[in-house]
Amino acid sequence: KINPDRLWDSLMEMAQIGPGVAGGNNRQTLTDEDAEGRALFQKWCEEAGCTMGLDTMGNMFAQRDGTDPDALPVYVGSHLDTQPTGGKYDGVLGVLGGLELLRTMNDLGIKTKHPVVVTNWTNEEGTRYAPAMLSSGVFAGIHTQEWAYAKTDAEGLSFGDELKRIGWQGDEEVGARKMHAFFELHIEQGPILETEGKDIGVVTHGQGLSWTQVTVTGKDAHTGSTPMPMRKNAGLGMARMLEAVDQIAWSHAPHAVGAAGHFEVYPNSRNVIPGQVIFTVDFRSPDLSVIEDMEKRLRVEGQKIANDMGLEVAFEKVGGFDPVTFDEGCVSAIRSAAERLGYSHMDVISGAGHDACWINGVAPTAMVMCPCVDGLSHNEAEEITKDWAKAGADVLLHAVLETAEI
Amino acid sequence: KINPDRLWDSLMEMAQIGPGVAGGNNRQTLTDEDAEGRALFQKWCEEAGCTMGLDTMGNMFAQRDGTDPDALPVYVGSHLDTQPTGGKYDGVLGVLGGLELLRTMNDLGIKTKHPVVVTNWTNEEGTRYAPAMLSSGVFAGIHTQEWAYAKTDAEGLSFGDELKRIGWQGDEEVGARKMHAFFELHIEQGPILETEGKDIGVVTHGQGLSWTQVTVTGKDAHTGSTPMPMRKNAGLGMARMLEAVDQIAWSHAPHAVGAAGHFEVYPNSRNVIPGQVIFTVDFRSPDLSVIEDMEKRLRVEGQKIANDMGLEVAFEKVGGFDPVTFDEGCVSAIRSAAERLGYSHMDVISGAGHDACWINGVAPTAMVMCPCVDGLSHNEAEEITKDWAKAGADVLLHAVLETAEI
Ligand SMILES: NC(=O)NCCC(=O)O
Ligand SMILES: NC(=O)NCCC(=O)O
Repeated sequence: KINPDRLWDSLMEMAQIGPGVAGGNNRQTLTDEDAEGRALFQKWCEEAGCTMGLDTMGNMFAQRDGTDPDALPVYVGSHLDTQPTGGKYDGVLGVLGGLELLRTMNDLGIKTKHPVVVTNWTNEEGTRYAPAMLSSGVFAGIHTQEWAYAKTDAEGLSFGDELKRIGWQGDEEVGARKMHAFFELHIEQGPILETEGKDIGVVTHGQGLSWTQVTVTGKDAHTGSTPMPMRKNAGLGMARMLEAVDQIAWSHAPHAVGAAGHFEVYPNSRNVIPGQVIFTVDFRSPDLSVIEDMEKRLRVEGQKIANDMGLEVAFEKVGGFDPVTFDEGCVSAIRSAAERLGYSHMDVISGAGHDACWINGVAPTAMVMCPCVDGLSHNEAEEITKDWAKAGADVLLHAVLETAEI
Repeated sequence: KINPDRLWDSLMEMAQIGPGVAGGNNRQTLTDEDAEGRALFQKWCEEAGCTMGLDTMGNMFAQRDGTDPDALPVYVGSHLDTQPTGGKYDGVLGVLGGLELLRTMNDLGIKTKHPVVVTNWTNEEGTRYAPAMLSSGVFAGIHTQEWAYAKTDAEGLSFGDELKRIGWQGDEEVGARKMHAFFELHIEQGPILETEGKDIGVVTHGQGLSWTQVTVTGKDAHTGSTPMPMRKNAGLGMARMLEAVDQIAWSHAPHAVGAAGHFEVYPNSRNVIPGQVIFTVDFRSPDLSVIEDMEKRLRVEGQKIANDMGLEVAFEKVGGFDPVTFDEGCVSAIRSAAERLGYSHMDVISGAGHDACWINGVAPTAMVMCPCVDGLSHNEAEEITKDWAKAGADVLLHAVLETAEI
């Protein structure tokens, strides 16, 4: 079993880097804080006797060698980047849980046939650079590296330039590694495990996602002297489309969710009727046909709202992935590890997207989840207990040991 | 009569400073561009033989002396600052129209009993620092200078610090000047004069304004893994309140308008349900009781929306002024000047707020308006014809000459 105090101490030490304003973290991808977090992780890995690989997308790979030089490694990991007002565990638990697994194997002198590699995937969150899971997506051949490098943040700084600037662009060709299997430990980010009183979620599926960027164009004009009938208020158009998004998602409840989180208003002045609003709608469902239906209805209903108001509207798909079915063998390795260790468990569908969703396309993959308090995530108040972290890391350890063959 | 080509050339030369991205201007208050525009205006005034006064709010006063040292000056003017995506005439026409008046009096060797002073009021637009008409408001004793200095922009830079930084904080006590009268020439910013085919609007009243800042607080949470019934979506709350704002304004149409132009969304990330949205509602009417009713209904209906959604909401009045009735004597000076000069004219109510609305409280005041194309303003495409500018400046000249006594 892993050492829960050591795991917890590492989580708390990492959380010192890029602290938020309310107890959580703001360690967004490719910032100076991201670089600092990476350096700490690398130091810890080297102290644990690992060699660090770094690919051209900045993905990190800390390897503990196996006994068979020909055996493909078993990979574990997640991401160290956070939301602007993120928690201390989302992603971080998966990376430092992987590190704890290496440390435990060292303590116990465990040798595995397959090497074990702990990864930190670059830009999982997708806040600074959409879409989410960008670098695992490039690794899995979903996106090209050129496309990813060209992504710009709100300040116009490109992913490629920022990766170079922080000094974490490696030489290794992205996606060249072959994996025996990939396991990701992550907090649930939803309320089900806590509500059901389970220690462990065995993730059998991941729900799919669709991000549609909506651009509503009206006419910026004076809020005082423009008569009501002459207005082309893009802000009001946005408001009506947000109501439609909510109704569309509810119409498929409980098998779908929908909301918009990111907004840009032009010119964003108190006495100017908004001439343009750009916002991104996030629809999810475990059922691909539901996602497709929601996407279609957003376009149809949004266009109707725009037509009725004399506005123009454009829709662009800026991110997404289909629902995922994880590898049966990996899933049952997790389930039987939980069983063996005596942790209560249940099968769950991941509500969030994860690097594992992309890696699932190029390697046998599965995920372990642990509960989080009130199901709250993407919030600085995100919280877990040390016992939950321990259970998750224990199950990860045992699933990996079984797969990497002691 | 004034020289329309000279006036137009000056307008176009000023528009070179702080150009926008689409043919208009971005010369926001207390920016380097504002400083550059002020310097050009000062140079032109000095070339016209005037002395420049500068008060502690950065208000500029270019004086052409009269023949009676005891006579109070007649003031004209408006503002040189613009919206972030503003036009070339909003405010600028009133300042450079005033300058053209001085130049014309010089050309014709006209002597007036009362001095004539052309002003440039600081921060009329209120975009960078709310509220609008900030410095004429301090001049008229509506706000204190301390309060104005402490206002901060989106970057947290204070009005007082920025005024010093750009080098346009004067020594003269703000509001110490006494005025014989104040006249402001401004583009209409609405469609009525053009629709009615009139050259001149004789502004008898100004409609009142109320700015309410609304803060909607929910809970930032994951867009994917948070079930619909558990969401506290501040963005959706905002959407419903925007719909209410529109309905409230329409319920008083055509005697009221309402919209929101400024929005801040937290944390503004595509996969985070907005935890907080702050936006400012702009309600206007020529009828004070209508403004009060709209303000009240916004609070009642906004609170109800919040309660129904498990959100919190707070309302803060961040700007406003009551409807204005301009001075009868000044209004009839404008009307009879238009009449004498043979320009078609009609009485109008100003839809926008103007420095004249505050100065009206401390001096006999009125406004002249000229049409603008399609009633469009607070938009880079704002446009007027040279003939309209000429008519407005001619009427301003004659109203001023009558009041300043040749
Ligand atoms: N786990 C997680 O929050 N990933 C970000 C991608 C998503 O929005 O699901
Ligand atoms: N004239 C003008 O646009 N003034 C700004 C204040 C307002 O919003 O009415």
